[in-house]
Amino acid sequence: MSDIRTFSTRRVEALTDGVFAIAMTLLVLDLHVDALGAVHSSGDLWRALTDIKSSILSFVVSFLLLGSMWAVHARQFEFIKRADRTLITINTFRLLAVVFIPLTTSIAGNYTDTVLGRVLFPVNFFLLAAVSYYEWCYAVSPAHDFASGLSKSDKAYLAVRNQAIVALSFLVIFVAAVVGEVAFVLFLLTPLLGRSRLQRPATRDA
Amino acid sequence: MSDIRTFSTRRVEALTDGVFAIAMTLLVLDLHVDALGAVHSSGDLWRALTDIKSSILSFVVSFLLLGSMWAVHARQFEFIKRADRTLITINTFRLLAVVFIPLTTSIAGNYTDTVLGRVLFPVNFFLLAAVSYYEWCYAVSPAHDFASGLSKSDKAYLAVRNQAIVALSFLVIFVAAVVGEVAFVLFLLTPLLGRSRLQRPATRDA
Amino acid sequence: MSDIRTFSTRRVEALTDGVFAIAMTLLVLDLHVDALGAVHSSGDLWRALTDIKSSILSFVVSFLLLGSMWAVHARQFEFIKRADRTLITINTFRLLAVVFIPLTTSIAGNYTDTVLGRVLFPVNFFLLAAVSYYEWCYAVSPAHDFASGLSKSDKAYLAVRNQAIVALSFLVIFVAAVVGEVAFVLFLLTPLLGRSRLQRPATRDA
Amino acid sequence: MSDIRTFSTRRVEALTDGVFAIAMTLLVLDLHVDALGAVHSSGDLWRALTDIKSSILSFVVSFLLLGSMWAVHARQFEFIKRADRTLITINTFRLLAVVFIPLTTSIAGNYTDTVLGRVLFPVNFFLLAAVSYYEWCYAVSPAHDFASGLSKSDKAYLAVRNQAIVALSFLVIFVAAVVGEVAFVLFLLTPLLGRSRLQRPATRDA
Repeated sequence: MSDIRTFSTRRVEALTDGVFAIAMTLLVLDLHVDALGAVHSSGDLWRALTDIKSSILSFVVSFLLLGSMWAVHARQFEFIKRADRTLITINTFRLLAVVFIPLTTSIAGNYTDTVLGRVLFPVNFFLLAAVSYYEWCYAVSPAHDFASGLSKSDKAYLAVRNQAIVALSFLVIFVAAVVGEVAFVLFLLTPLLGRSRLQRPATRDA
Repeated sequence: MSDIRTFSTRRVEALTDGVFAIAMTLLVLDLHVDALGAVHSSGDLWRALTDIKSSILSFVVSFLLLGSMWAVHARQFEFIKRADRTLITINTFRLLAVVFIPLTTSIAGNYTDTVLGRVLFPVNFFLLAAVSYYEWCYAVSPAHDFASGLSKSDKAYLAVRNQAIVALSFLVIFVAAVVGEVAFVLFLLTPLLGRSRLQRPATRDA
Repeated sequence: MSDIRTFSTRRVEALTDGVFAIAMTLLVLDLHVDALGAVHSSGDLWRALTDIKSSILSFVVSFLLLGSMWAVHARQFEFIKRADRTLITINTFRLLAVVFIPLTTSIAGNYTDTVLGRVLFPVNFFLLAAVSYYEWCYAVSPAHDFASGLSKSDKAYLAVRNQAIVALSFLVIFVAAVVGEVAFVLFLLTPLLGRSRLQRPATRDA
Repeated sequence: MSDIRTFSTRRVEALTDGVFAIAMTLLVLDLHVDALGAVHSSGDLWRALTDIKSSILSFVVSFLLLGSMWAVHARQFEFIKRADRTLITINTFRLLAVVFIPLTTSIAGNYTDTVLGRVLFPVNFFLLAAVSYYEWCYAVSPAHDFASGLSKSDKAYLAVRNQAIVALSFLVIFVAAVVGEVAFVLFLLTPLLGRSRLQRPATRDA
């Protein structure tokens, strides 16, 4: 009977890959040649491109952040082998947070001089990180245990990594309120954080 | 000889996942930063966002409904193992109903003060639900039996679940004609309906 | 050595599914709510929708034709197990013909009163059908034989089916020059044609 | 422990196929029917189409180049069986170079009379080729050896092929600065180059 109530995760992965791929590519639609205006020389073109410099930067930051949130999904579903209706619903809300990113990125690029304009994108990203973590918690909870092949120390490591992203993205909301998108450089700390934690359980296991 | 007339369903799933992913992401294109107009402060931006509140709501409702119709497809094709030319044609019409959703969502968001404007989106959704159910009936009909590994009680359960969605979405057309997109809260009843039915065959099987 | 020069076809299929899914969904972008103009009542909305009736029809025809050309690809690659660099290049040209469809569909919808406007879409479709057939010929040619598991009569049947589509789409160019997109109803003949051929080799094999 | 730090490459391939498919299809959005202006006869339509001839050519060139860079990715990941966090990060930067292609293609089509306008697209393409090569080097480096099933001579052949594309695309930057996008005909040399190298290791192996 369990068969009919749970799904293989293959299609969840395919839909998720599709939504991430499209959201990441749609970001660039905001950078359109029409925004460059009248151009008569290489100098004009250069000035036009530097004028939309902050949009280009917003785009690159959002692209890389979406790329890393995709990697979080890929890693989680490397271990999650089955899904039930609730997990798929959580995943749909996660994708909802993904498709809002192009809009909040535009807002961040255009209204960077207002507090709300600076804050909406990090709030969106925080919600994405929070739902991502919640989906993982649901999947590995003893009640469902959709990631059965995973050792305790590995589970702990992955939980900490996900928590770190949620905590960092929460912190970024407040830093971004003051300094804008530059706040996302804080995410360069994630690998350091993750790597140091990784060593410890590894040695304990051995 | 049956080999050359039937297909594996892997590619049908891939095309379907792609079309759902794109339709779900295209919905957000209607929410564009240009619609926000002149913004000089956080207060301006907040007012601009509340002005497009009904568009945002339409988008979220459509996104979640498409997500749940995708889950219906995923569940059906968890069991459908082969496809013939007719099944693929039915599936193409199903995808046609999917790609109309962004247009009818726009109409619902913009012309909510006319009856036709309120009705087109639920009609589109009803057609999607009806074709979805028809595809399932075709696949499990004794003549084709593309879902051979399924017990009788499971088949009955899935049929009822699909019928419930068709019936509810038909009902929503009339409720939406009066109250607008709020009518879709009726869909929150689906899981209740499904769950109660699920228990009964399960106990009978045991 | 053959390993490094040929590919598995899994990724060719994934790229193709993606391009078809996007092209099919992009078609609908032409049907935008902005085109409906000022609407104050259900009557206004109905008139606005009937005004873009020919665009809606163009869209539906193109969608269904792309869906059937996708099915041709799916069927071919049900049998093609390996690909070399040349096959991938042919496939890229095939996808090029696919992504031109949204543009030529727009042209067909907007310039239906000029011969060239009526002819460009069927020409595009004919080129797509011709490249599709050429790719199949390349794959099953004795020199490469990428579809080795296929009996002779099955190969003959699939070749005839592909030829029929090429011939019909060539015919449609001339009929469309006179009567417009209605010419595509000729494609309703394809299944008849295919089905009658299918019986004969089947009986001969038995 | 290695399991939790490396991924299967299946999802990396799926995201990459999605991004390539969308970028390749988005290119065509620049060729829109609105750009054709007022058309009253077949003659008008023909003139309108020849007016956007250089945009159509830019589009076709970019499409075929993206198609060939996709084939490079497909071939590399035919051999790369596992991925770690760093490989995924490199792949994300590779996709970033892909999604910039529609923008730089537009610039190439619109500002072909300025040096900077002619140079940005080849620079983008060169960066894509360079990251592609770097990803391959990282994957086959003895430290990671994610492509273990590959003979030495095959590795050498694939390295040379990748280097040839990087070198050619670097050369094209300078030729394009003078003659524009026509410079990309130089890429027709790649197969020649690759084929001649392929014979040699083959005979040595035998």
